[in-house]
Amino acid sequence: MIDHPGFVLWFTGLSGAGKTTISVALEPKLRARGVRVERLDGDTVRQSLTKDLGFSKEDRDKNIERVMFVAKLLSRNNVAVLSAFISPYAATRDFVRTETTNFVEVFVDAPLMVCAERDVKGMYAKAFAGEIANFTGVSDPYEAPQNPDIHLKTHEMNLDECVDHVLNWLEERAFIPATVTEG
Amino acid sequence: MIDHPGFVLWFTGLSGAGKTTISVALEPKLRARGVRVERLDGDTVRQSLTKDLGFSKEDRDKNIERVMFVAKLLSRNNVAVLSAFISPYAATRDFVRTETTNFVEVFVDAPLMVCAERDVKGMYAKAFAGEIANFTGVSDPYEAPQNPDIHLKTHEMNLDECVDHVLNWLEERAFIPATVTEG
Repeated sequence: MIDHPGFVLWFTGLSGAGKTTISVALEPKLRARGVRVERLDGDTVRQSLTKDLGFSKEDRDKNIERVMFVAKLLSRNNVAVLSAFISPYAATRDFVRTETTNFVEVFVDAPLMVCAERDVKGMYAKAFAGEIANFTGVSDPYEAPQNPDIHLKTHEMNLDECVDHVLNWLEERAFIPATVTEG
Repeated sequence: MIDHPGFVLWFTGLSGAGKTTISVALEPKLRARGVRVERLDGDTVRQSLTKDLGFSKEDRDKNIERVMFVAKLLSRNNVAVLSAFISPYAATRDFVRTETTNFVEVFVDAPLMVCAERDVKGMYAKAFAGEIANFTGVSDPYEAPQNPDIHLKTHEMNLDECVDHVLNWLEERAFIPATVTEG
Protein backbone atom coordinates (compact mmCIF):
# COMPACT_ATOMS: atom_id res chain seq x y z
CA MET A 1 0.00 0.00 0.00
CA ILE A 2 1.16 3.47 -0.85
CA ASP A 3 1.05 6.44 1.50
CA HIS A 4 -1.81 8.76 0.60
CA PRO A 5 -4.09 11.10 2.50
CA GLY A 6 -7.66 10.16 3.28
CA PHE A 7 -10.42 12.06 1.55
CA VAL A 8 -14.17 11.95 1.03
CA LEU A 9 -15.71 12.22 -2.42
CA TRP A 10 -19.24 13.18 -1.45
CA PHE A 11 -21.46 12.61 -4.48
CA THR A 12 -24.71 14.55 -4.19
CA GLY A 13 -27.50 14.84 -6.73
CA LEU A 14 -30.98 13.74 -7.69
CA SER A 15 -31.98 10.11 -7.92
CA GLY A 16 -30.87 8.91 -11.35
CA ALA A 17 -28.24 11.63 -11.83
CA GLY A 18 -25.46 9.02 -11.81
CA LYS A 19 -23.91 9.18 -8.32
CA THR A 20 -23.58 5.45 -7.78
CA THR A 21 -22.63 4.72 -11.40
CA ILE A 22 -19.72 7.14 -11.24
CA SER A 23 -18.53 5.98 -7.82
CA VAL A 24 -18.67 2.32 -8.87
CA ALA A 25 -16.59 3.15 -11.98
CA LEU A 26 -14.09 5.14 -9.92
CA GLU A 27 -13.44 2.48 -7.30
CA PRO A 28 -11.22 0.12 -9.38
CA LYS A 29 -9.39 3.10 -10.94
CA LEU A 30 -8.41 4.28 -7.48
CA ARG A 31 -7.46 0.79 -6.30
CA ALA A 32 -5.22 0.43 -9.36
CA ARG A 33 -3.23 3.38 -8.01
CA GLY A 34 -2.76 1.70 -4.65
CA VAL A 35 -5.39 3.77 -2.89
CA ARG A 36 -7.44 2.27 -0.06
CA VAL A 37 -11.11 2.79 -0.96
CA GLU A 38 -14.48 2.26 0.67
CA ARG A 39 -17.73 2.93 -1.11
CA LEU A 40 -20.71 4.01 0.99
CA ASP A 41 -24.14 4.11 -0.61
CA GLY A 42 -27.63 2.81 0.02
CA ASP A 43 -26.72 -0.70 -1.04
CA THR A 44 -23.60 -0.99 1.10
CA VAL A 45 -24.95 0.60 4.30
CA ARG A 46 -28.59 -0.39 4.39
CA GLN A 47 -28.04 -3.89 5.68
CA SER A 48 -25.97 -3.08 8.74
CA LEU A 49 -26.03 0.57 9.41
CA THR A 50 -29.33 2.11 8.42
CA LYS A 51 -31.87 -0.64 7.90
CA ASP A 52 -34.31 0.95 10.35
CA LEU A 53 -34.51 4.19 8.35
CA GLY A 54 -37.04 5.50 5.82
CA PHE A 55 -37.12 8.65 3.74
CA SER A 56 -38.57 11.36 5.98
CA LYS A 57 -36.36 14.39 6.59
CA GLU A 58 -35.60 13.09 10.06
CA ASP A 59 -34.61 9.66 8.78
CA ARG A 60 -32.55 11.11 5.95
CA ASP A 61 -30.66 13.19 8.48
CA LYS A 62 -30.04 10.15 10.67
CA ASN A 63 -28.84 8.25 7.63
CA ILE A 64 -26.31 10.94 6.76
CA GLU A 65 -25.27 11.27 10.39
CA ARG A 66 -24.30 7.61 10.58
CA VAL A 67 -22.59 7.64 7.19
CA MET A 68 -20.73 10.77 8.27
CA PHE A 69 -19.45 9.00 11.36
CA VAL A 70 -18.06 6.18 9.22
CA ALA A 71 -16.61 8.60 6.64
CA LYS A 72 -14.97 10.60 9.43
CA LEU A 73 -13.18 7.60 10.90
CA LEU A 74 -12.12 6.24 7.51
CA SER A 75 -10.93 9.52 6.03
CA ARG A 76 -8.80 10.44 9.04
CA ASN A 77 -7.12 7.03 8.71
CA ASN A 78 -5.97 7.53 5.12
CA VAL A 79 -8.88 5.85 3.39
CA ALA A 80 -10.62 7.30 0.32
CA VAL A 81 -14.38 7.29 0.84
CA LEU A 82 -16.78 7.34 -2.09
CA SER A 83 -20.15 8.32 -0.70
CA ALA A 84 -23.25 8.36 -2.91
CA PHE A 85 -26.41 9.69 -1.30
CA ILE A 86 -28.89 12.25 -2.59
CA SER A 87 -28.10 14.34 0.52
CA PRO A 88 -30.48 17.12 -0.54
CA TYR A 89 -29.79 19.60 2.26
CA ALA A 90 -26.91 22.08 1.92
CA ALA A 91 -26.58 22.53 5.67
CA THR A 92 -26.18 18.80 6.16
CA ARG A 93 -23.46 18.60 3.51
CA ASP A 94 -21.68 21.57 5.05
CA PHE A 95 -21.74 19.83 8.39
CA VAL A 96 -20.22 16.68 6.90
CA ARG A 97 -17.45 18.88 5.49
CA THR A 98 -16.55 20.14 8.96
CA GLU A 99 -16.47 16.62 10.42
CA THR A 100 -14.41 14.76 7.80
CA THR A 101 -10.90 14.94 6.38
CA ASN A 102 -10.47 16.43 2.87
CA PHE A 103 -14.17 16.63 2.04
CA VAL A 104 -14.83 17.04 -1.69
CA GLU A 105 -18.36 17.99 -2.69
CA VAL A 106 -19.09 16.41 -6.08
CA PHE A 107 -22.30 17.71 -7.64
CA VAL A 108 -23.67 15.01 -9.96
CA ASP A 109 -25.93 17.22 -11.98
CA ALA A 110 -28.62 16.39 -14.50
CA PRO A 111 -31.94 18.16 -15.06
CA LEU A 112 -34.87 16.62 -13.23
CA MET A 113 -36.57 15.61 -16.47
CA VAL A 114 -33.44 13.81 -17.67
CA CYS A 115 -33.29 11.86 -14.41
CA ALA A 116 -37.01 11.15 -14.65
CA GLU A 117 -36.62 9.84 -18.19
CA ARG A 118 -33.79 7.52 -17.15
CA ASP A 119 -35.97 6.42 -14.21
CA VAL A 120 -33.70 3.47 -13.48
CA LYS A 121 -35.76 2.12 -10.61
CA GLY A 122 -39.20 3.20 -11.83
CA MET A 123 -39.41 5.58 -8.90
CA TYR A 124 -40.08 8.83 -10.73
CA ALA A 125 -43.20 7.39 -12.39
CA LYS A 126 -44.55 6.54 -8.96
CA ALA A 127 -43.47 9.88 -7.52
CA PHE A 128 -45.20 11.86 -10.27
CA ALA A 129 -48.29 9.70 -9.76
CA GLY A 130 -48.24 10.77 -6.12
CA GLU A 131 -47.55 7.25 -4.91
CA ILE A 132 -44.29 8.13 -3.13
CA ALA A 133 -44.16 10.84 -0.51
CA ASN A 134 -40.98 12.84 0.14
CA PHE A 135 -39.41 12.16 -3.23
CA THR A 136 -36.50 14.53 -3.78
CA GLY A 137 -37.03 16.87 -6.72
CA VAL A 138 -40.71 16.02 -7.00
CA SER A 139 -42.35 16.32 -3.60
CA ASP A 140 -39.30 17.17 -1.54
CA PRO A 141 -36.65 19.86 -2.07
CA TYR A 142 -33.15 19.40 -3.51
CA GLU A 143 -30.78 22.18 -2.54
CA ALA A 144 -28.22 22.18 -5.34
CA PRO A 145 -24.61 22.95 -4.33
CA GLN A 146 -23.84 26.61 -4.99
CA ASN A 147 -20.11 26.14 -5.19
CA PRO A 148 -19.25 22.44 -5.51
CA ASP A 149 -15.62 21.33 -5.57
CA ILE A 150 -16.35 19.22 -8.65
CA HIS A 151 -19.32 19.69 -10.98
CA LEU A 152 -20.26 16.78 -13.26
CA LYS A 153 -23.04 17.43 -15.77
CA THR A 154 -24.02 13.89 -16.63
CA HIS A 155 -26.36 14.92 -19.46
CA GLU A 156 -23.35 16.52 -21.22
CA MET A 157 -20.42 14.29 -20.18
CA ASN A 158 -20.26 10.53 -20.57
CA LEU A 159 -19.17 8.19 -17.79
CA ASP A 160 -15.52 8.00 -18.83
CA GLU A 161 -15.28 11.78 -18.99
CA CYS A 162 -16.77 12.10 -15.52
CA VAL A 163 -14.37 9.51 -14.08
CA ASP A 164 -11.33 11.13 -15.74
CA HIS A 165 -12.38 14.55 -14.52
CA VAL A 166 -12.47 13.34 -10.92
CA LEU A 167 -9.15 11.47 -11.24
CA ASN A 168 -7.46 14.55 -12.68
CA TRP A 169 -8.86 16.74 -9.94
CA LEU A 170 -7.51 14.35 -7.29
CA GLU A 171 -4.15 14.04 -9.01
CA GLU A 172 -3.68 17.80 -9.27
CA ARG A 173 -4.11 18.06 -5.50
CA ALA A 174 -1.80 15.09 -4.83
CA PHE A 175 -4.62 13.19 -3.16
CA ILE A 176 -3.72 10.24 -5.38
CA PRO A 177 -0.53 9.26 -7.25
CA ALA A 178 -0.41 9.93 -10.97
CA THR A 179 0.61 6.44 -11.94
CA VAL A 180 -0.87 2.99 -11.67
CA THR A 181 1.03 0.81 -9.18
CA GLU A 182 1.85 -2.88 -9.39
CA GLY A 183 -0.37 -5.44 -7.63
CA MET B 1 2.83 6.06 9.34
CA ILE B 2 4.17 2.52 9.43
CA ASP B 3 2.72 -0.42 7.54
CA HIS B 4 0.75 -2.68 9.84
CA PRO B 5 -2.24 -4.96 9.49
CA GLY B 6 -5.65 -3.92 10.74
CA PHE B 7 -7.09 -5.78 13.71
CA VAL B 8 -9.94 -5.57 16.18
CA LEU B 9 -9.39 -5.82 19.91
CA TRP B 10 -12.90 -6.71 21.01
CA PHE B 11 -13.11 -6.09 24.77
CA THR B 12 -16.05 -7.95 26.29
CA GLY B 13 -17.03 -8.20 29.94
CA LEU B 14 -19.39 -7.03 32.64
CA SER B 15 -20.04 -3.38 33.33
CA GLY B 16 -17.24 -2.23 35.63
CA ALA B 17 -14.82 -5.00 34.61
CA GLY B 18 -12.43 -2.46 33.07
CA LYS B 19 -13.02 -2.64 29.30
CA THR B 20 -12.95 1.09 28.63
CA THR B 21 -10.20 1.78 31.16
CA ILE B 22 -7.88 -0.71 29.48
CA SER B 23 -8.69 0.45 25.94
CA VAL B 24 -8.15 4.10 26.88
CA ALA B 25 -4.76 3.21 28.36
CA LEU B 26 -3.81 1.18 25.29
CA GLU B 27 -4.61 3.83 22.71
CA PRO B 28 -1.57 6.11 23.25
CA LYS B 29 0.74 3.11 23.60
CA LEU B 30 -0.32 1.90 20.16
CA ARG B 31 -0.08 5.39 18.63
CA ALA B 32 3.45 5.68 20.00
CA ARG B 33 4.34 2.69 17.81
CA GLY B 34 2.96 4.36 14.70
CA VAL B 35 -0.27 2.38 14.67
CA ARG B 36 -3.49 3.94 13.37
CA VAL B 37 -6.09 3.51 16.13
CA GLU B 38 -9.79 4.13 16.57
CA ARG B 39 -11.57 3.52 19.84
CA LEU B 40 -15.23 2.53 19.70
CA ASP B 41 -17.26 2.50 22.89
CA GLY B 42 -20.51 3.86 24.23
CA ASP B 43 -19.09 7.34 24.62
CA THR B 44 -17.64 7.58 21.12
CA VAL B 45 -20.53 6.05 19.17
CA ARG B 46 -23.63 7.10 21.07
CA GLN B 47 -23.76 10.62 19.66
CA SER B 48 -23.71 9.76 15.96
CA LEU B 49 -24.20 6.11 15.46
CA THR B 50 -26.47 4.65 18.09
CA LYS B 51 -28.25 7.46 19.88
CA ASP B 52 -31.67 5.91 19.17
CA LEU B 53 -30.83 2.68 20.98
CA GLY B 54 -31.60 1.42 24.48
CA PHE B 55 -30.60 -1.75 26.31
CA SER B 56 -33.09 -4.41 25.23
CA LYS B 57 -31.63 -7.49 23.55
CA GLU B 58 -32.84 -6.19 20.21
CA ASP B 59 -31.24 -2.78 20.72
CA ARG B 60 -28.02 -4.30 22.00
CA ASP B 61 -27.86 -6.40 18.86
CA LYS B 62 -28.45 -3.35 16.64
CA ASN B 63 -25.75 -1.49 18.53
CA ILE B 64 -23.23 -4.25 17.93
CA GLU B 65 -24.32 -4.58 14.29
CA ARG B 66 -23.51 -0.92 13.59
CA VAL B 67 -20.25 -1.03 15.51
CA MET B 68 -19.36 -4.19 13.61
CA PHE B 69 -19.89 -2.43 10.31
CA VAL B 70 -17.50 0.33 11.33
CA ALA B 71 -14.96 -2.13 12.74
CA LYS B 72 -15.13 -4.16 9.54
CA LEU B 73 -14.33 -1.19 7.30
CA LEU B 74 -11.59 0.13 9.57
CA SER B 75 -9.86 -3.21 10.20
CA ARG B 76 -9.71 -4.13 6.53
CA ASN B 77 -8.06 -0.78 5.87
CA ASN B 78 -5.17 -1.32 8.27
CA VAL B 79 -6.63 0.43 11.28
CA ALA B 80 -6.47 -1.00 14.81
CA VAL B 81 -9.91 -0.91 16.41
CA LEU B 82 -10.34 -0.91 20.18
CA SER B 83 -13.94 -1.81 20.84
CA ALA B 84 -15.36 -1.79 24.37
CA PHE B 85 -18.91 -3.05 24.74
CA ILE B 86 -20.36 -5.55 27.19
CA SER B 87 -21.43 -7.65 24.16
CA PRO B 88 -22.93 -10.38 26.35
CA TYR B 89 -23.91 -12.86 23.65
CA ALA B 90 -21.35 -15.40 22.41
CA ALA B 91 -23.11 -15.84 19.07
CA THR B 92 -22.95 -12.11 18.41
CA ARG B 93 -19.23 -12.00 19.17
CA ASP B 94 -18.64 -15.01 16.94
CA PHE B 95 -20.46 -13.23 14.13
CA VAL B 96 -18.30 -10.13 14.55
CA ARG B 97 -15.26 -12.40 14.28
CA THR B 98 -16.41 -13.66 10.87
CA GLU B 99 -17.04 -10.12 9.58
CA THR B 100 -13.88 -8.34 10.63
CA THR B 101 -10.15 -8.60 9.94
CA ASN B 102 -7.92 -10.13 12.66
CA PHE B 103 -10.59 -10.24 15.36
CA VAL B 104 -9.15 -10.66 18.85
CA GLU B 105 -11.59 -11.53 21.63
CA VAL B 106 -10.35 -9.96 24.87
CA PHE B 107 -12.23 -11.19 27.92
CA VAL B 108 -12.07 -8.48 30.58
CA ASP B 109 -12.92 -10.64 33.52
CA ALA B 110 -13.79 -9.77 37.09
CA PRO B 111 -16.33 -11.46 39.37
CA LEU B 112 -19.76 -9.86 39.43
CA MET B 113 -19.40 -8.84 43.06
CA VAL B 114 -16.08 -7.11 42.36
CA CYS B 115 -17.68 -5.14 39.52
CA ALA B 116 -20.67 -4.37 41.73
CA GLU B 117 -18.40 -3.12 44.50
CA ARG B 118 -16.53 -0.84 42.08
CA ASP B 119 -19.94 0.33 40.77
CA VAL B 120 -18.35 3.24 38.95
CA LYS B 121 -21.62 4.62 37.64
CA GLY B 122 -23.88 3.59 40.51
CA MET B 123 -25.69 1.25 38.15
CA TYR B 124 -25.32 -1.99 40.10
CA ALA B 125 -27.01 -0.52 43.17
CA LYS B 126 -29.98 0.40 41.01
CA ALA B 127 -29.93 -2.96 39.23
CA PHE B 128 -29.93 -4.91 42.50
CA ALA B 129 -32.76 -2.68 43.72
CA GLY B 130 -34.73 -3.72 40.64
CA GLU B 131 -34.71 -0.20 39.23
CA ILE B 132 -32.96 -1.14 35.96
CA ALA B 133 -34.31 -3.86 33.72
CA ASN B 134 -32.04 -5.91 31.46
CA PHE B 135 -28.89 -5.26 33.44
CA THR B 136 -26.19 -7.68 32.34
CA GLY B 137 -25.07 -10.04 35.11
CA VAL B 138 -28.01 -9.11 37.34
CA SER B 139 -31.24 -9.36 35.38
CA ASP B 140 -29.78 -10.29 31.98
CA PRO B 141 -27.31 -13.03 31.03
CA TYR B 142 -23.61 -12.63 30.33
CA GLU B 143 -22.20 -15.45 28.25
CA ALA B 144 -18.53 -15.52 29.22
CA PRO B 145 -16.07 -16.36 26.41
CA GLN B 146 -15.16 -20.05 26.60
CA ASN B 147 -11.88 -19.65 24.74
CA PRO B 148 -10.91 -15.97 24.50
CA ASP B 149 -7.81 -14.96 22.59
CA ILE B 150 -6.72 -12.84 25.56
CA HIS B 151 -7.96 -13.26 29.13
CA LEU B 152 -7.46 -10.35 31.53
CA LYS B 153 -8.45 -10.95 35.16
CA THR B 154 -8.74 -7.39 36.37
CA HIS B 155 -9.19 -8.38 40.01
CA GLU B 156 -5.76 -10.04 39.91
CA MET B 157 -3.80 -7.89 37.42
CA ASN B 158 -3.37 -4.15 37.63
CA LEU B 159 -3.90 -1.80 34.69
CA ASP B 160 -0.24 -1.71 33.59
CA GLU B 161 -0.06 -5.49 33.63
CA CYS B 162 -3.19 -5.75 31.50
CA VAL B 163 -1.89 -3.21 28.97
CA ASP B 164 1.52 -4.91 28.76
CA HIS B 165 -0.09 -8.30 28.34
CA VAL B 166 -2.09 -7.05 25.32
CA LEU B 167 0.90 -5.28 23.78
CA ASN B 168 3.05 -8.40 24.11
CA TRP B 169 0.34 -10.55 22.57
CA LEU B 170 0.10 -8.17 19.58
CA GLU B 171 3.87 -7.95 19.24
CA GLU B 172 4.30 -11.72 19.23
CA ARG B 173 1.90 -11.95 16.29
CA ALA B 174 3.56 -9.05 14.44
CA PHE B 175 0.32 -7.06 14.56
CA ILE B 176 2.37 -4.14 15.90
CA PRO B 177 6.06 -3.27 15.76
CA ALA B 178 8.14 -3.95 18.84
CA THR B 179 9.60 -0.48 19.09
CA VAL B 180 8.30 3.00 19.61
CA THR B 181 8.60 5.13 16.46
CA GLU B 182 9.49 8.79 16.12
CA GLY B 183 6.76 11.42 15.84
